[in-house]
Amino acid sequence: MKALVYDGTLAVRDVPTPEPGTGEATVRVSMAGICNTDIEIARGYMGFSGILGHEMVGVVEAAPDPALVGTRVTAEINLACGRCERCARGFGRHCASRTVLGILGKDGCFAERVTLPVRNLHAVPDTLSDEQAVFTEPFAAAFEVLELVHVEPMAEVGVLGDGKLGLLCATALRGTEANLTLVGKHERKLAHARKLGIPTQPADAVQPGQFDIVVEATGSPSGLDLALTAVRPRGTVVLKSTFFGRPEIDTAKVVIDEIRVVGSRCGPFPAALRSLRAGRADPTPLIDARYGLNDAVTAFEHTQRSGVLKVLLDLS
Amino acid sequence: MKALVYDGTLAVRDVPTPEPGTGEATVRVSMAGICNTDIEIARGYMGFSGILGHEMVGVVEAAPDPALVGTRVTAEINLACGRCERCARGFGRHCASRTVLGILGKDGCFAERVTLPVRNLHAVPDTLSDEQAVFTEPFAAAFEVLELVHVEPMAEVGVLGDGKLGLLCATALRGTEANLTLVGKHERKLAHARKLGIPTQPADAVQPGQFDIVVEATGSPSGLDLALTAVRPRGTVVLKSTFFGRPEIDTAKVVIDEIRVVGSRCGPFPAALRSLRAGRADPTPLIDARYGLNDAVTAFEHTQRSGVLKVLLDLS
Repeated sequence: MKALVYDGTLAVRDVPTPEPGTGEATVRVSMAGICNTDIEIARGYMGFSGILGHEMVGVVEAAPDPALVGTRVTAEINLACGRCERCARGFGRHCASRTVLGILGKDGCFAERVTLPVRNLHAVPDTLSDEQAVFTEPFAAAFEVLELVHVEPMAEVGVLGDGKLGLLCATALRGTEANLTLVGKHERKLAHARKLGIPTQPADAVQPGQFDIVVEATGSPSGLDLALTAVRPRGTVVLKSTFFGRPEIDTAKVVIDEIRVVGSRCGPFPAALRSLRAGRADPTPLIDARYGLNDAVTAFEHTQRSGVLKVLLDLS
Repeated sequence: MKALVYDGTLAVRDVPTPEPGTGEATVRVSMAGICNTDIEIARGYMGFSGILGHEMVGVVEAAPDPALVGTRVTAEINLACGRCERCARGFGRHCASRTVLGILGKDGCFAERVTLPVRNLHAVPDTLSDEQAVFTEPFAAAFEVLELVHVEPMAEVGVLGDGKLGLLCATALRGTEANLTLVGKHERKLAHARKLGIPTQPADAVQPGQFDIVVEATGSPSGLDLALTAVRPRGTVVLKSTFFGRPEIDTAKVVIDEIRVVGSRCGPFPAALRSLRAGRADPTPLIDARYGLNDAVTAFEHTQRSGVLKVLLDLS
């Protein structure tokens, strides 16, 4: 089968079709999304080598339970052992021996087929298009903010970053009815946010201590400094960005202002699917381009152009 | 009067006796404690210039209400405006226009006399010695951990740092009945902790993910890396250390393991005084030396010797 492989260079290759292990299904990929994490991995983040990709929707082609065959699914990306203490306590996403689809020790979904544990699969409601369903994984990651932090309806909330991560976080947070502002540097993307009903503010207009809660989704080390400036004393900064390297932090500011900094990664798929199914969110306006798998390297280049939001790989 | 002044160099000088402002009392200082923050200030932290010192016990010599004269007191160090929104919400310790005793825009207590707002004063119970009462400020800062973080009785808690800050934090946390371990590098100080009934562990024996909650009280940038290693996924790191500079942080670890990092500074004096008065804590075994005010520069040097805990200035 064809797949987008990163092993120091990025190329579409012919690779063996994967064989499902115990408890695994084979899924024929219909559509996949390119994430900033994929870009960071191709810069050395996580030291990953293999097939990239972790945002997908597809159709089950083979499964231990034949009734699953033909089901349209999206998939959680953390493959937990299911046996350790963390798994037993429901923290499989933090299982110490987990692999992660297209990120850590497990080939990803930028391929014609992918194998996945059945317990990682979520059926996609018929009313959702592939274009909507392919956003389930990053939209679930946005809901993880709400799993980790109590966002009160009267809170002043700033989302830093007008890229797809920031826009999805702002979309997930809308339901809290907190006073939400998307902060960014690109007028085109900010205009986009306003079209989605999200108030915006240019980054250079941020006031010190303006927000009770700041979600840092810029994907850039400098976003953290802005977040620590924008949050009030005793406020909360949620870190969503992952990037390669060790940024310098003003820890004295964190201590003096007693700021809570909360890391946030993968999130709850059912919450994302409920929101999408009920029509409370539609991320498809974020789609800027789609490419076939053969043109995946070009798609990667497109994703990194200034102002570009979501680029999809369409294998249907 | 005499005072220990830092203005680029550290020296005992003759300075004018301060005049109390509106709502302020004059306190004759009986005893004062040297804190690591004082050492950091003498390295450039906070850009402070003036009389150092913020840990003290003394006797009111003049006050707007004459009934206060003669009262033995300790004092909260944040001088809030009392009028802004943060003050109105009870967050005077975070008042944006506050000054801070011996740290920010307000002469400190390494002096024969100090002026302080009456509302900052706390009467010292008669049963407490000056040696005990002088610990109220740093011991209150230790209780701030419990103001900011819920420490469950079944939590595994590690306090990193066998200096006076770490020992006071561990002492404050004992009452939670969490499974508490003090982690340090100095066998002499660790032996000290064990004498206080606190289990200890050498820093090089820390296991990754060993603790649910880690209190970083090493006073050193490297302590943060150890804290992020020692805490489990979804665990909490409380930052108590302040130091000069911007350390590099593994933010990807914070995001991937969804760690909460909580800055913590000054704390509740009533909690510290209750604990001291009830005899649930006695910090006096931490006292390593005492000097007169004339020898304050020597006392500063003594404080920085390896293995030294609390050094006091005795003005009584």
